[in-house]
Amino acid sequence: MSTAWTSRYAQRTKHVKSSAIRELLKITQRPEVISFAGGLPASEVFPNDRFREACSKVLEREPNRALQYGASEGYEPLREMIARHIARYGIKARVENVLITSGSQQALDLIGKLLINAGDRVLVEAPTYLGALQAFNVYGAEYISVKSDDDGLRTDRLEPSLRSGPKFMYVLPNFQNPGGTTLSEGRRHELVLLAEKYGIPVIEDDPYGQLRFEGEHLPPLVVLDRENLRGDDGYSIGNVIYLSTFSKTLAPGLRLGWIVAPPDVIAKLVQLKQGADLHTSTFAQAIGYEVARDGFLDEHVKLIRRVYRERRDVMLEALEQNFPPEVTWTRPQGGLFLWVSLPEGMDAQRLFETALKENVAFVPGDSFYAPNGNAEEARRHLRLNFSAAKPDQIREGIRRLGIAVKRQWDELHPLPVGRP
Amino acid sequence: MSTAWTSRYAQRTKHVKSSAIRELLKITQRPEVISFAGGLPASEVFPNDRFREACSKVLEREPNRALQYGASEGYEPLREMIARHIARYGIKARVENVLITSGSQQALDLIGKLLINAGDRVLVEAPTYLGALQAFNVYGAEYISVKSDDDGLRTDRLEPSLRSGPKFMYVLPNFQNPGGTTLSEGRRHELVLLAEKYGIPVIEDDPYGQLRFEGEHLPPLVVLDRENLRGDDGYSIGNVIYLSTFSKTLAPGLRLGWIVAPPDVIAKLVQLKQGADLHTSTFAQAIGYEVARDGFLDEHVKLIRRVYRERRDVMLEALEQNFPPEVTWTRPQGGLFLWVSLPEGMDAQRLFETALKENVAFVPGDSFYAPNGNAEEARRHLRLNFSAAKPDQIREGIRRLGIAVKRQWDELHPLPVGRP
Repeated sequence: MSTAWTSRYAQRTKHVKSSAIRELLKITQRPEVISFAGGLPASEVFPNDRFREACSKVLEREPNRALQYGASEGYEPLREMIARHIARYGIKARVENVLITSGSQQALDLIGKLLINAGDRVLVEAPTYLGALQAFNVYGAEYISVKSDDDGLRTDRLEPSLRSGPKFMYVLPNFQNPGGTTLSEGRRHELVLLAEKYGIPVIEDDPYGQLRFEGEHLPPLVVLDRENLRGDDGYSIGNVIYLSTFSKTLAPGLRLGWIVAPPDVIAKLVQLKQGADLHTSTFAQAIGYEVARDGFLDEHVKLIRRVYRERRDVMLEALEQNFPPEVTWTRPQGGLFLWVSLPEGMDAQRLFETALKENVAFVPGDSFYAPNGNAEEARRHLRLNFSAAKPDQIREGIRRLGIAVKRQWDELHPLPVGRP
Repeated sequence: MSTAWTSRYAQRTKHVKSSAIRELLKITQRPEVISFAGGLPASEVFPNDRFREACSKVLEREPNRALQYGASEGYEPLREMIARHIARYGIKARVENVLITSGSQQALDLIGKLLINAGDRVLVEAPTYLGALQAFNVYGAEYISVKSDDDGLRTDRLEPSLRSGPKFMYVLPNFQNPGGTTLSEGRRHELVLLAEKYGIPVIEDDPYGQLRFEGEHLPPLVVLDRENLRGDDGYSIGNVIYLSTFSKTLAPGLRLGWIVAPPDVIAKLVQLKQGADLHTSTFAQAIGYEVARDGFLDEHVKLIRRVYRERRDVMLEALEQNFPPEVTWTRPQGGLFLWVSLPEGMDAQRLFETALKENVAFVPGDSFYAPNGNAEEARRHLRLNFSAAKPDQIREGIRRLGIAVKRQWDELHPLPVGRP
């Protein structure tokens, strides 16, 4: 009678399919494969000793609190710490502006639940984070895709799309996944002004903002938005909801993320959070807080930046050495990913199959485009992760990938017959 | 512009309000209040030492796995342990039948997402677990309520409701929340046969099944259902989805629950889980596994049973001593709750206000009825939790509650004028 279930599935499940990446990851877990496919932080830099200390402290000082049910809003000391922590980026938040979520993915799910009626259009970057598409799809979202380039979302193309009335806009301004690109300061101002002009709320997703290897920190959209709201210090209003996480700075296995928003939005999200999972693991929150506190997070992030910067440099150098000049890529100033563009006629899906034979993996670009994104264009891209593999593996992996790329290139451009 | 958000909330948020219990709990957290309102496990019995050991082991043996992203299905050793563990209750499950969720509440949310289109009717017990109502409300569920008595759901009243075509049935057969009642064995057989006859799937929620203080364990619905499916050992099909959790046996702060279902249902739920939070905290899962393994959980549950049994007995005795004979209550054979019925004319909401003045708290019964449940009847009940308070507090709390009850009773039944 198992089919009895299938026939009872809700409409919304039709919009949902398994993440292409998660399926790919299963294939690419063979030990001989060097994988640039996942989005895993380097596990070598997980602060294990600090975690061990944190566990001892939490279980000694307040086991009853850490193991018991907690508030849906989150563990108060963690919420306070986050409010203090983001103040340095100019985000003036109070505890009541912060909701702890089970990773940033849950933040996206709760926002979809809060805002999307079936058929509502969401304005996204092309390409954009596929986990957001997955979260929004289940609520029946449709999409308006706006192109991005090396400076992020093309704000010069934004106005017609805003005028067509999307429900909200979803943007990753820093070291975007998958593009690796950063929204320039000028465009940030422009985006915020246009969003206000057309009354379109903005979801600012910032999982990687702290992982800047070089260049100047740029103001978050939420700060620019609030600078326009003179006289409001309490973050009681605003057009931008800001998301971040510990997944890329401490450890993704904790599943700790947060939403920063006006209190009435937080209150509604808390109701949805109650129905979704009551609250995020108190134990994980207490441990995350204990690990991060007293400046540890800031010190630790410096280490991550050094490690990832080196890996990015190794990857960029290996790409120069192994890829034909017709292939281009972004040069991210931070984060975990870069984005490769193949010349016309090449196909990243087919490249993926050849690459797997060479024991190297990546994610073909089409996963990162909303359904009505440019499919033709989508097929000419690949996302490469540079955080998970070690430098030697990166060199070897890009060498292998170079072989696969050249093979496809040569098939498209055979040597003229008769030449020696 | 905060109102800009409010005007953009999705339709579904209209069905959602904050849990009355969670709001009550805030009021009742004053230290002088003895609270029977929450559903908290006794924190005195949390196995802190075992948690400490588990943290050390996990962070020594496999920090990289425990702190890294994991599979959406859950941490494999934990899924295997659960499959083995439930086999003793006759549930023949394999790893592919088990999905780890962020507490049982997330299981309810995912099931709502999977099955409920707006306007679909869900058959529930009256009264039923209000967290399930909260989870289903967001998907626009409507309800068919079927009364229960001391032997659980009145299966003799089930058939007309099943005939009217609910999308599925949601039942808590063991030590129900809030009723404290257990579905009798005869009714279990009847329920399963009727559900099959009308092709109505069953969600069997079993958070408390292991906490039986006395009497014989009764077969889960999922087992009875599968006995009717001759020749299927692999749990590849079936009409019942089974839910359980570590929240009442180890610690709710871990937020670990699970869904047991046919593999094609699990596969669909995994897709929804990906979009909802990628996966449950790997760290919490690894710790939960390490704490529970090697028979620890079974030993620990014996301790919990002893402690809760004593508290139940103390509460039952105090009720006898302090409540007028017109008030009745259930006598649960396990779990965390009992259910008090007031005589006609009395009102649990008003009683709550008087009780708070006496510094004692409970949850008025109307929270546990679906919107179209019997409102009149609902007002004459209260749920009392006997797991969280210590025996002396229980005695004192029931004494105080008795004062409030007698006051309302006396107001309704004044002494005849002129009697001395």
